[in-house]
Amino acid sequence: MNTNGTEISNGAMTNAHWNLDHIVAELRAARSRVRQDCVEKGDREMPSREALRNIIDGFFGVLFPDHFGLPDLTEEGIDYFVGHRLDETLRALSIQVQRELQFSCEATEDHTVKHANKAFQITRDFASRLPKIAALLESDVRAGYQGDPAAKSIDEVRFCYPGVTAITHHRIAHELYSLGVPLLARIIAELAHSATGIDIHPGATIGASFFIDHGTGVVIGETAKIGERVRLYQAVTLGAKSFPMREDGALVKGIARHPIVEDDVVIYAGATILGRITIGRGSTIGGNVWITRNIPPGSHVAQAQARAEAFNEGGGI
Amino acid sequence: MNTNGTEISNGAMTNAHWNLDHIVAELRAARSRVRQDCVEKGDREMPSREALRNIIDGFFGVLFPDHFGLPDLTEEGIDYFVGHRLDETLRALSIQVQRELQFSCEATEDHTVKHANKAFQITRDFASRLPKIAALLESDVRAGYQGDPAAKSIDEVRFCYPGVTAITHHRIAHELYSLGVPLLARIIAELAHSATGIDIHPGATIGASFFIDHGTGVVIGETAKIGERVRLYQAVTLGAKSFPMREDGALVKGIARHPIVEDDVVIYAGATILGRITIGRGSTIGGNVWITRNIPPGSHVAQAQARAEAFNEGGGI
Amino acid sequence: MNTNGTEISNGAMTNAHWNLDHIVAELRAARSRVRQDCVEKGDREMPSREALRNIIDGFFGVLFPDHFGLPDLTEEGIDYFVGHRLDETLRALSIQVQRELQFSCEATEDHTVKHANKAFQITRDFASRLPKIAALLESDVRAGYQGDPAAKSIDEVRFCYPGVTAITHHRIAHELYSLGVPLLARIIAELAHSATGIDIHPGATIGASFFIDHGTGVVIGETAKIGERVRLYQAVTLGAKSFPMREDGALVKGIARHPIVEDDVVIYAGATILGRITIGRGSTIGGNVWITRNIPPGSHVAQAQARAEAFNEGGGI
Amino acid sequence: MNTNGTEISNGAMTNAHWNLDHIVAELRAARSRVRQDCVEKGDREMPSREALRNIIDGFFGVLFPDHFGLPDLTEEGIDYFVGHRLDETLRALSIQVQRELQFSCEATEDHTVKHANKAFQITRDFASRLPKIAALLESDVRAGYQGDPAAKSIDEVRFCYPGVTAITHHRIAHELYSLGVPLLARIIAELAHSATGIDIHPGATIGASFFIDHGTGVVIGETAKIGERVRLYQAVTLGAKSFPMREDGALVKGIARHPIVEDDVVIYAGATILGRITIGRGSTIGGNVWITRNIPPGSHVAQAQARAEAFNEGGGI
Amino acid sequence: MNTNGTEISNGAMTNAHWNLDHIVAELRAARSRVRQDCVEKGDREMPSREALRNIIDGFFGVLFPDHFGLPDLTEEGIDYFVGHRLDETLRALSIQVQRELQFSCEATEDHTVKHANKAFQITRDFASRLPKIAALLESDVRAGYQGDPAAKSIDEVRFCYPGVTAITHHRIAHELYSLGVPLLARIIAELAHSATGIDIHPGATIGASFFIDHGTGVVIGETAKIGERVRLYQAVTLGAKSFPMREDGALVKGIARHPIVEDDVVIYAGATILGRITIGRGSTIGGNVWITRNIPPGSHVAQAQARAEAFNEGGGI
Amino acid sequence: MNTNGTEISNGAMTNAHWNLDHIVAELRAARSRVRQDCVEKGDREMPSREALRNIIDGFFGVLFPDHFGLPDLTEEGIDYFVGHRLDETLRALSIQVQRELQFSCEATEDHTVKHANKAFQITRDFASRLPKIAALLESDVRAGYQGDPAAKSIDEVRFCYPGVTAITHHRIAHELYSLGVPLLARIIAELAHSATGIDIHPGATIGASFFIDHGTGVVIGETAKIGERVRLYQAVTLGAKSFPMREDGALVKGIARHPIVEDDVVIYAGATILGRITIGRGSTIGGNVWITRNIPPGSHVAQAQARAEAFNEGGGI
Repeated sequence: MNTNGTEISNGAMTNAHWNLDHIVAELRAARSRVRQDCVEKGDREMPSREALRNIIDGFFGVLFPDHFGLPDLTEEGIDYFVGHRLDETLRALSIQVQRELQFSCEATEDHTVKHANKAFQITRDFASRLPKIAALLESDVRAGYQGDPAAKSIDEVRFCYPGVTAITHHRIAHELYSLGVPLLARIIAELAHSATGIDIHPGATIGASFFIDHGTGVVIGETAKIGERVRLYQAVTLGAKSFPMREDGALVKGIARHPIVEDDVVIYAGATILGRITIGRGSTIGGNVWITRNIPPGSHVAQAQARAEAFNEGGGI
Repeated sequence: MNTNGTEISNGAMTNAHWNLDHIVAELRAARSRVRQDCVEKGDREMPSREALRNIIDGFFGVLFPDHFGLPDLTEEGIDYFVGHRLDETLRALSIQVQRELQFSCEATEDHTVKHANKAFQITRDFASRLPKIAALLESDVRAGYQGDPAAKSIDEVRFCYPGVTAITHHRIAHELYSLGVPLLARIIAELAHSATGIDIHPGATIGASFFIDHGTGVVIGETAKIGERVRLYQAVTLGAKSFPMREDGALVKGIARHPIVEDDVVIYAGATILGRITIGRGSTIGGNVWITRNIPPGSHVAQAQARAEAFNEGGGI
Repeated sequence: MNTNGTEISNGAMTNAHWNLDHIVAELRAARSRVRQDCVEKGDREMPSREALRNIIDGFFGVLFPDHFGLPDLTEEGIDYFVGHRLDETLRALSIQVQRELQFSCEATEDHTVKHANKAFQITRDFASRLPKIAALLESDVRAGYQGDPAAKSIDEVRFCYPGVTAITHHRIAHELYSLGVPLLARIIAELAHSATGIDIHPGATIGASFFIDHGTGVVIGETAKIGERVRLYQAVTLGAKSFPMREDGALVKGIARHPIVEDDVVIYAGATILGRITIGRGSTIGGNVWITRNIPPGSHVAQAQARAEAFNEGGGI
Repeated sequence: MNTNGTEISNGAMTNAHWNLDHIVAELRAARSRVRQDCVEKGDREMPSREALRNIIDGFFGVLFPDHFGLPDLTEEGIDYFVGHRLDETLRALSIQVQRELQFSCEATEDHTVKHANKAFQITRDFASRLPKIAALLESDVRAGYQGDPAAKSIDEVRFCYPGVTAITHHRIAHELYSLGVPLLARIIAELAHSATGIDIHPGATIGASFFIDHGTGVVIGETAKIGERVRLYQAVTLGAKSFPMREDGALVKGIARHPIVEDDVVIYAGATILGRITIGRGSTIGGNVWITRNIPPGSHVAQAQARAEAFNEGGGI
Repeated sequence: MNTNGTEISNGAMTNAHWNLDHIVAELRAARSRVRQDCVEKGDREMPSREALRNIIDGFFGVLFPDHFGLPDLTEEGIDYFVGHRLDETLRALSIQVQRELQFSCEATEDHTVKHANKAFQITRDFASRLPKIAALLESDVRAGYQGDPAAKSIDEVRFCYPGVTAITHHRIAHELYSLGVPLLARIIAELAHSATGIDIHPGATIGASFFIDHGTGVVIGETAKIGERVRLYQAVTLGAKSFPMREDGALVKGIARHPIVEDDVVIYAGATILGRITIGRGSTIGGNVWITRNIPPGSHVAQAQARAEAFNEGGGI
Repeated sequence: MNTNGTEISNGAMTNAHWNLDHIVAELRAARSRVRQDCVEKGDREMPSREALRNIIDGFFGVLFPDHFGLPDLTEEGIDYFVGHRLDETLRALSIQVQRELQFSCEATEDHTVKHANKAFQITRDFASRLPKIAALLESDVRAGYQGDPAAKSIDEVRFCYPGVTAITHHRIAHELYSLGVPLLARIIAELAHSATGIDIHPGATIGASFFIDHGTGVVIGETAKIGERVRLYQAVTLGAKSFPMREDGALVKGIARHPIVEDDVVIYAGATILGRITIGRGSTIGGNVWITRNIPPGSHVAQAQARAEAFNEGGGI
């Protein structure tokens, strides 16, 4: 390309010249530096976020065929629908599981076959847990109906509530996480996060009859443990208080650092609960409070108490 | 299937066996328990979230044809566009209204015809309110332009602002709510919630020239009443303070339990206002404050005052 | 239409009569009032949000071809993919740039040609900055991996983290903003806001190695300046404290009114920092604190201190 | 619009003025004349060609699940696939059947219910005939494999041969024709005609083991009757010789006017057989011959004989 | 790439190497030779076949809104539909017209503006002819109903008959051809050819009440002229007898070389009529005949006569 | 389901009962019989017609990027487009090749790897032949332009002519056929047949500068051999005269049974040429003639001669 720019005055786009070769080379240079850490692993395929979105849609249909399946399923047709949707969704999941397995380690020819077998086995195990997931989700939906005076019907809760969307994603993601495919689990969790503003790490353990109302801004950390019949409102954080570092300055990964919330706890909007502490059974945590120490069973923690605690504690974050 | 698992060693997916019959039967068992409460009602079709998304897109096009219609509408063509889009959108809405009517009560042959007639009438009434909605939305867009120093133009506000997205959904949803189709209204509200992080219950009453800036985390409850020229920022809650229970332990549904916000009030980010209290005309509520009692007209409530109040009040949540 | 309503009893929808002519005329009347302020500008096309969504997808593919390009790119094929995707994405961007240029000023025949040339030049300049953007994003991804103990791999951060989604959109939007197409920039920012709950105005200046964890509810204002190696958590606000008005009551637009955050600062969840103040290098700001004055370098600000400050300051919001 | 055309010189499309009102009015005038013959019938919906295309795809999947269903069906999953696909395809067909019933006669409120019931019954009868259709198509596919030396496998015939495409459409269309929905049948026949160049009227009766090779240009008329094991090549016509008129000059509709082709007949490319004549069992009709009289069983008719016949017969067409 | 092929034994596709650079270079070399004849014209965009398919669908909807528009248009909504569909279809057509104008001659900056204006004018002229086209098509549909004893209703003819599909395309294409955009016209003609097997060159002139039954294999040449109330059957050719060459051996283009068919002629299946001859008013041409000389009005030409003629004429083709 | 049919009178579709279990079982029974002949081969995936359609579109784009690629490719961008499209199209082809290989023989685990390697090798060989195909297609397009007086430009021929569509498909299909994947080749041939009415068996050998005008009804058999600069018109058949049978009554497959057409031959519309005969170099075959014996070089065969031959020959078909 000449440098006096005259090509621009001749009809705009027609001779457009983006300097493609140069930019592509620069991007390649930037990219090469990035991929040095996996150069020994050969080419691998990333799981597909779009495929996982469809897989989740598939499981929503399987779990709630009247609400997320087809609008006019008859009693005669419903099992054919469920069976077929399940079959194709599991098949699609198996492919993504295999991609994660290959992505996270070397993929030689032998490994490809092993990964296919392992992906099949993981998917099959996951399938066998679907009825348990279905039962838990039933308990969650009922908890939502009972916990929200604005809920007009069970169906409204099941069909509309972002808290139900989030916990459905989570219960699927958590099983995948525990079966050894944490990247798929995380992608699914982020699909829910994007749709609902509720950010539940797939590692979190959550009991039956769980309900989050409104939900935007909720954060539940990787090692949190939540009992049965727990209810949360928007902007509640169950987070870590601090991150231990190794001697080399890197964060220590994987240690238990998020709260334990026992059965029958209610946590109102904006409450922040940090660190490996326990909120005792049956407690109520008021809105916007800030808690960094254990709360005994049956407590009612409101603003004033929490503030006092915060004042005393001083330098915590 | 044989039980020694050898099918797995023969070529991965080819003989894959998910145990479909067993899982389908278990899911059916789980499902049967769920549907017992509507067994007397016959088969019914759920409204379609996807259809409602398209319907909302249709009304966005009808209401703002230059921004959400077609990019190159001429003066000559615009009314044809609006009329045609309106016609097909109303028809699509009427089908969804009929589904909600059928879904919420017994659908015999006679009822089907009655529901179709009632759905038509509801849709027709809704259509007649569209010009009023259009005028309110004009006032909202202008309020956004006047209230945000970052707004470069009216068009930027109309086209980009999530607060405008949310209030447009709400004004449509609120009319449907008041016309007797609360499930459709709720689905529409949750579409906005998912897209913007702003959660306005379709039952809430909101006056002209309303503006929410940023908006993520805003929650406005079912029985809230908001006057004219009110401005909110992100993470504001207009919520309920407590939920009265019936003797049987179930929540009492439908009673007025959310704030009344009078004309010309501004509420800054993160403020939490709970219960059937009144924020008087012209007041300003500071960021992150926590309010559970009436505020007289013309007040300026900031952190310190609110904290003091909270300390005094003690055990409320 | 006759007025006794008998058309309703004849077969529901078949004679449906929405009163289209009347509603279309009313909507036209409402619309006419709106467009009076641009009547002298001739017909113009709005940029397309859908087109920009595809353009952003295109740049994600160009910048991270292994993660957002195609799942099975070989070493041989990757530059062809990048070059082709870049070419078609730049072409699509150029069309949207031209639309914004035409939209924001008079479009006569001469201007159309000028706008096409200017759009080409802006797009070309943008293209030349892509390698710089790629390098910054690399630093951001590494910062995310180092800053989150839950991160299992660099790839998980790049592929799943909403903070990475948001900063990728922002770095693209910010260049467009600085090249003179603020409406496109704002639409892109709102795409990220909708997907992640993170609201970064495209005018904000952000240094390398930036990381936002969880992110829902974060707001970063138009004139904020953020240094290198800064880390934020969910619901952090870097906002304006007050909006000066002109004598006629309109807001003064464009003045510096948001914080400066220097290098190596960490700001925990829910902190609110307002006004043109400076958070000094290396400081840590605790969760939920409220700051409206300068913080010296190396500070650790936690709840108690912040509360005291708030109490003292009194009437500020 | 002004009449001096100056709008054209101002920037091409921007003020484009198609004279829409005028053209729409003229088209309405043209259209009104057309619809006078059905004005007494009320508004009706046409069947949808696109819906029928999908319905046919559905039945292809049901009938040949390995070839036109999903590529990787397992033994375990195949019946779920078939049952579900069948259920949704029958439901879609039932809607189209109802449209044809309503289209062809007055649609009052009562009739709508009757039509729905009748449509359900027709669809149910059709469903019960699917196994018979499947068996006939098996015989057709085998006939194709046995009759074409270029056929490499049964699967190639089933998957690729336009003759199989055409007869599959026909066997479906013919059942619908005989069940009283000739318009749907005709649309299906034309879908095959468009895809293959083979034009079989749905009224034609065709026995088992039927094969058309190449097929382009084949025409088989409404009242043709074809026995078992018949084989045709491209451009064969089984047509009418003349069309009796009524006294008023209109054609008499519905009388038997096309050939009867008995079992085991082969008809080579380009042969034209006209009128209600019989081609006797086991005959072979050579390419390009022209036949308008009965052919006894076991005949071999070639060019010379046919020419001679044509010369003798003189003025017939 | 190494040459010992070992990359193939390492996991199939993973290191796949198509030798892209080499093939791309070879294809470029082949391509360069091709484009030498238009190198002086600058870059130009081809019209889009897919866009034209949508444009034709648009005009089908405008011309037959009850059949190819929307299935449930009401009297109130139909003109809005027609007006809007017409507006967007004309806009889309105008873009394609501009592409053809630019494609067929030099596209400098000035020319671009001129082409846009000319494209607008051509499209506007085309629009003004649509009512005439609608009236002709009405006559064609009625001719089909009257001419085919198998036609059950006017609607079946309008909706299903390939002859109607073909003539609708032709009447649109012919107007475009006569307005100076022959390439668009040809693409439209080939869309019809592909769908119906009927190949009518857009240059052919065809009077009202035209009907082609079955149609596969019909060919009508560029300079053919067909009167009113003419009926054709499948595989009729109205072709050229010979192609005069220039001294340099190139064909002379554009001279009248196809038949003139006067009013009220019927031509049966497979007849071949070649050269600039005239088939006189009211004649009937029998199936499969071969005609290369004028036929006087009122003739009945059958096989024998035609053969005799062919024998006499000898060496013609 | 009760047997008195009362479910039909209760609201049409709501209790619809297709008798799915029964029909599915019957279809399974029919299907089982069909699959007995491949029961020993394990489950296999059929190639996908839709995938092949996209693959062909991909190669059209690679071969003719200005016409079937993207409308506005610049000189700078074209090779990126070609390289990327080629890469993804070859990858897609390789998957289909592997399916055919697996489909046609036993697919054990070992074989899967072998098939993947072989599929890669076949695809790579195919890729290396693309430049040769491109050169042949250039000669074909030029032959079309030179051979048709209606052709306005080279581009019209390349873009619109069904003969070009057909020969492009054929040249691709023929290479695949010769590389050992005849089923893919046949599917591609039938895609062309369906779109153009031209039926060329992928086994046929065709020299450079080949042109078919109009084309509907052309049939070219598996073992036909066509020289250079040959021109055909619509409805020409190059077919087999008879099919030898084995002693068991089955057809002998694969023997040479179609004509050899030498260089520079023209065959006019409707001519039928049958058997392993040779049409000598430079001959012209008139329309509708019927030939079953060798034709010496330089002959002009017209109707009369052909008829005479037919009369003499007698019983041939």
